[in-house]
Amino acid sequence: MIYLDNAATSFPKPDCVCLEMYRCMREYCANPGRGGHALSLKAGMAVNRARETVCRLFNIRDPMRLAFTKNATEAINIAIKGLVFPGCHVITTAMEHNAVMRPLRTLERDMGIGISIIKGNEFGEIDPFDVRRSIKKNTALVICTLSSNVNGIIMPVAEIGRTAREYGIPFLVDASQGAGSLPVDVEAWNADMLAFPGHKGLMGPQGTGGLYVREGIRLRTLMEGGTGSNSEYAFQPEIMPDMLESGTLNTPGIVGLGAGAEYVIKIGTGTIHEYKSRLTGLLAEGLSQVPGVRLYSHADGSRNSGIVAMNLADMDPAKLSFILDKDFGICTRAGLQCSPAAHASLGTAGLGSVRFSVGCFNTENDVILAVEAVERIARSTAT
Amino acid sequence: MIYLDNAATSFPKPDCVCLEMYRCMREYCANPGRGGHALSLKAGMAVNRARETVCRLFNIRDPMRLAFTKNATEAINIAIKGLVFPGCHVITTAMEHNAVMRPLRTLERDMGIGISIIKGNEFGEIDPFDVRRSIKKNTALVICTLSSNVNGIIMPVAEIGRTAREYGIPFLVDASQGAGSLPVDVEAWNADMLAFPGHKGLMGPQGTGGLYVREGIRLRTLMEGGTGSNSEYAFQPEIMPDMLESGTLNTPGIVGLGAGAEYVIKIGTGTIHEYKSRLTGLLAEGLSQVPGVRLYSHADGSRNSGIVAMNLADMDPAKLSFILDKDFGICTRAGLQCSPAAHASLGTAGLGSVRFSVGCFNTENDVILAVEAVERIARSTAT
Repeated sequence: MIYLDNAATSFPKPDCVCLEMYRCMREYCANPGRGGHALSLKAGMAVNRARETVCRLFNIRDPMRLAFTKNATEAINIAIKGLVFPGCHVITTAMEHNAVMRPLRTLERDMGIGISIIKGNEFGEIDPFDVRRSIKKNTALVICTLSSNVNGIIMPVAEIGRTAREYGIPFLVDASQGAGSLPVDVEAWNADMLAFPGHKGLMGPQGTGGLYVREGIRLRTLMEGGTGSNSEYAFQPEIMPDMLESGTLNTPGIVGLGAGAEYVIKIGTGTIHEYKSRLTGLLAEGLSQVPGVRLYSHADGSRNSGIVAMNLADMDPAKLSFILDKDFGICTRAGLQCSPAAHASLGTAGLGSVRFSVGCFNTENDVILAVEAVERIARSTAT
Repeated sequence: MIYLDNAATSFPKPDCVCLEMYRCMREYCANPGRGGHALSLKAGMAVNRARETVCRLFNIRDPMRLAFTKNATEAINIAIKGLVFPGCHVITTAMEHNAVMRPLRTLERDMGIGISIIKGNEFGEIDPFDVRRSIKKNTALVICTLSSNVNGIIMPVAEIGRTAREYGIPFLVDASQGAGSLPVDVEAWNADMLAFPGHKGLMGPQGTGGLYVREGIRLRTLMEGGTGSNSEYAFQPEIMPDMLESGTLNTPGIVGLGAGAEYVIKIGTGTIHEYKSRLTGLLAEGLSQVPGVRLYSHADGSRNSGIVAMNLADMDPAKLSFILDKDFGICTRAGLQCSPAAHASLGTAGLGSVRFSVGCFNTENDVILAVEAVERIARSTAT
């Protein structure tokens, strides 16, 4: 099997991730930060270590500003709904995932917020100046994906962050694609909030993710509950991360995420991105030479987080993806990938495209075989 | 080490739970229900199997009505916030956890909902007739815990459910304590919604839980995002469980929960409850004979899900719990256990109590040693 669906979930996972989760389940999966007994303290320390590791990776200075969530979607919902108010205005891009677009559309419908959606070039890359031009007096939030989950295009988040900070508007980065290989830096980007999943580039398990919230950004809570702190207080405590971490945390998942992030730090995001870029470039170049293939991704790794989106002639992408799986054992993802607006931008609304997404455990051989498979399918379809 | 903090998180976990999670992480942790490739389908089937297993345990007829959440707190927040409206009225009990009380108090403050809180007898057990007496024209929801996380008292949920159904008022049961040992039956209880954690009595990992929503109950969503379904639709799909499961699911956690629920079904909730009741009874009886001990739990297993709450003379419960851990290796939980209202009911507001909670892997010997430890502490304090 050749797994090229790393933009959905990275696979396989490093040994250290699987083993640490197993060890946690066996040895110390008590409630972190609740009871004061030995096992609970051990779980709490493991969670804190993971928190510190992730913060090191993202240049988050105060680990207490990072809340763990179940996935990036929860983090994005907390960020958006914690800040918007009736009649406010939000700026975002046409390359966002439904994790951003569906909450915004729901708030537009139910709360009357305004949304400006910035369109990009043929790859969806936006001009940061368009953000500046879209700012209104009531703009409450700017949201941008670090990199598109449809075609991998890397967005100019640092430039956007500079503009948002200049106007004093909170800036949320969705780092779902790119965290773990691109150099995420909340300080350099002026990111007031950063949402991320644990199970993609950070090499951790599904069921994990997080939201960084800069000191000074005050959110309303999406959920309230037991926090193990100020238990006698009738409302949610306002201290971070407790404020955003109601109920029992996913200790085994979080220690897995911590192990994954440690693995990424050890290898180095630069090394990972360089390696993935080489595979992405090879794949894009190889596919571009197959008759009938249309590419929607940049071949240049400095502008792509590791995704090659394509279609073959007028073949339904779902069919192509199905043949790749069934006849060649190659795992890709077809369709809209939960990002209909991005597909509309790229001209692939409707059926979408086939997405190949590389991970740091893919090899050059995987890529060569994938190109060969598409070539063979193209030939057999043409005849 | 003697672990008597099972009401926080059950520990240890059955072998099958740890092994299946490890196998998932190693072999098939792709995105369930997203791509159509072999690994994604395998993950999707594993999630569905877990869904069916949990439904079997709770007598939920249609597995599609069960959404997985990260914990019971998320499930409770989804249920409450999905149903209440400005100016509505909610009935609940004085024994609820902060997972219920904090969302309600927040909505009372921000949305002007009214709350009736039913007080119980000296154990917190409420009279179902008080629910009937509290119903108003605008009552939108009745919420009751299956069993208190402070003293284990089992609530008359079937009777309350009958009343709620009679008046056509949605009824939410918080089964955080008791699921896995008490015979949870959403049909027999007329429970319109059931919230539960995966990591307590169901023997699964932290980071899991779920919400059952009866067909016909329409919730507003708390979060929106990618669901892998109707991706071109700008809003959250209204089909269950997708509607409540935005973003990537916790596949390894959910397969662990499924394995735990299968384990519970194999042993039988009746057998587990009987076994835990025997230990609870022994513990309560043993502790009651120690001079200076005050008990807040029923010794009778038919009225207790497996918790013994106590205090020793005027000793700070945090200190007693600390000594039990440090000098005897016994894990308990002191303080308010995130349920200040319940403690106020039992007369233990302020410092709370020490909670011993048994699990199905505890032995009679564990209980005897725990009683002996308290006896020794009592003697050394008295002299």
